[in-house]
Amino acid sequence: MKIKIENLKALRLLNPGPLVLVTSKYQGKSNIVTVAWTSPISHEPPLISISLSTKKYSHILIGNSKDFTVNIPSVELLEKVLICGSASGREVDKFKESGFTKVPGKKVSSPSIKECFAFLECKVVDSFLCGDHYLFIGEIIHAEVEKKYYDDHIDIEKIKFINHLGGQYFTYPSEIVEKKR
Amino acid sequence: MKIKIENLKALRLLNPGPLVLVTSKYQGKSNIVTVAWTSPISHEPPLISISLSTKKYSHILIGNSKDFTVNIPSVELLEKVLICGSASGREVDKFKESGFTKVPGKKVSSPSIKECFAFLECKVVDSFLCGDHYLFIGEIIHAEVEKKYYDDHIDIEKIKFINHLGGQYFTYPSEIVEKKR
Repeated sequence: MKIKIENLKALRLLNPGPLVLVTSKYQGKSNIVTVAWTSPISHEPPLISISLSTKKYSHILIGNSKDFTVNIPSVELLEKVLICGSASGREVDKFKESGFTKVPGKKVSSPSIKECFAFLECKVVDSFLCGDHYLFIGEIIHAEVEKKYYDDHIDIEKIKFINHLGGQYFTYPSEIVEKKR
Repeated sequence: MKIKIENLKALRLLNPGPLVLVTSKYQGKSNIVTVAWTSPISHEPPLISISLSTKKYSHILIGNSKDFTVNIPSVELLEKVLICGSASGREVDKFKESGFTKVPGKKVSSPSIKECFAFLECKVVDSFLCGDHYLFIGEIIHAEVEKKYYDDHIDIEKIKFINHLGGQYFTYPSEIVEKKR
């Protein structure tokens, strides 16, 4: 069961650099793209950035619809995540190709992915061409996370997100280290 | 022993979302700030982003010097990393406070940190005010990594970077997962 969390708190879902699936929809066409290059960038308002290659199909959908959803997969979904990172949404329906289940957006046109343990719905507030990628700045307007996997941060004792080391190499978190500051 | 790596390859050092230490220097004053909000954003040229609170001292140094260095600490350095994230460089010398060793920059004015296993020297190519943070876009112009901890990606069997889960909770990678795409 996914529960709504505060938009500000949702920034924490992206803090440790998880590999994510960005979903989008424009004129009836929806897509999924695998993205490692994302980061929180502001608390007030809660903003995040995602970086999309100018060659990718998703930047056209997101540039037009002005919204996107960031979905966080666990390491068990890595095979499906890689399918979404290799095929192009211009040619194939990535929901069909990957077998992921499409869920209608709550506050945005972009759908979310049922199998992911958390999602963040974002409105595009700005975008910049930076080198060979578009940097989209999104404001989180709605976020949900599986209740059992969230304890004010991602509960990595119960669920493992994916970190992309580069190329074909990935990792996932081991244990929680608590340090009072 | 640190070896130089290609600027393009250096993007991979930031791929899995490590907590980093950003060093800067302007008019003889240097500083260290702990930053979780960073990401690669372009291959050609190799660009990265760092997000710094408008309240932080470092954005003034970096805004003037137009360069910064991203240093990657291992999990053994977490205590020192937290010192750099709590004190303000306006009031204290963070190199003294943390005990980190200052190394002169190779291609930039910003120093690097000897104890970190990798560093990326960046020239500021753009900056944007996004909410309550400045987003600095840096081009990697020089990067070095400890030879024994690098095998075309960070060798997490030998060195553990830090991921910040939020608040006082941190984690580090467990094992490498290899997946042909």
